[in-house]
Amino acid sequence: MTENQTLNTIFNRSSYRGRFKNEPVPREDLAMILKAGIAAPSGCNRQTPSFIAVDEEELVKGVKQIFPNPSCQTAPAFILVFTQEIAGIDGHFYNVQDYGAAVENMLLAMKSLGYDSCWYERGIRRYTDPISALLRVPEGLRMVCLLPVGVAAEEVHPAKGKKPFEERAWFNLPETAK
Amino acid sequence: MTENQTLNTIFNRSSYRGRFKNEPVPREDLAMILKAGIAAPSGCNRQTPSFIAVDEEELVKGVKQIFPNPSCQTAPAFILVFTQEIAGIDGHFYNVQDYGAAVENMLLAMKSLGYDSCWYERGIRRYTDPISALLRVPEGLRMVCLLPVGVAAEEVHPAKGKKPFEERAWFNLPETAK
Repeated sequence: MTENQTLNTIFNRSSYRGRFKNEPVPREDLAMILKAGIAAPSGCNRQTPSFIAVDEEELVKGVKQIFPNPSCQTAPAFILVFTQEIAGIDGHFYNVQDYGAAVENMLLAMKSLGYDSCWYERGIRRYTDPISALLRVPEGLRMVCLLPVGVAAEEVHPAKGKKPFEERAWFNLPETAK
Repeated sequence: MTENQTLNTIFNRSSYRGRFKNEPVPREDLAMILKAGIAAPSGCNRQTPSFIAVDEEELVKGVKQIFPNPSCQTAPAFILVFTQEIAGIDGHFYNVQDYGAAVENMLLAMKSLGYDSCWYERGIRRYTDPISALLRVPEGLRMVCLLPVGVAAEEVHPAKGKKPFEERAWFNLPETAK
């Protein structure tokens, strides 16, 4: 642990798959989380990610009926993440990197505000069309992931199963090349 | 501004393209930045991003000779980011999202430690092969971006050209559907 709260948040964030407390998330916190997503950089500043915060009781219930994930059944709110395939000035697409950075910003914002979450992308894929229909999402926005937002009701474990530092990073030349 | 340092870091991060001060970046700070990258989540925990911190004078000079970006010419160190195309358990690839999240973590870690940077991906594409050769990067790692690390020598401006909140995010149903 350091006194650098940003680093603490980065190192304490983990994928939480437990139950959430039955406590609503204030609108101002959800707005701050959305603003954190918007603050992420994007390739050629195309700003391809968009976000919906879902906190209306009927709509939250509707999302839960569509996405039968046990942890998400207890979440008081959700953030839905959308992408637009807009090419950069070089003709390449950066929209996947863009939403990766934006999702990380939102996960860190949540953690710093006392919430836990999990990045559901693989798990949500087969449910994105009905969820988009429920939320009357404008055409052209493709839903890519869902983040529950809530206060953890169970113990939050640190991120696990991480490879050792040496397998992911090094300084200058690799050991074998020195 | 809030008292939440994590949110402040998120909102103060911007793409810095000015000159850097002629001050080395301590190894412990570079290590912390790399650890922040490692701490990012990854699809199916495949941990597809890898990172090299370049701070040896001859190698830093070598990167600058290959990548003729004016701002980077004054950087005392670089972080190079690599990806591996490893499929998740569903056969889909999440490696681009993975490095998007990892890069954002590193940009935030830098900002929180007093450094500024810029995510060079489009600009670096034509130079990744010679840079990888210079750094004797193991086979199978594909370089995708470069982040200079240093103390800004010029004024750091806030991120600009952002669309208004309403064009990127909303609560529940879109206005027109209510």
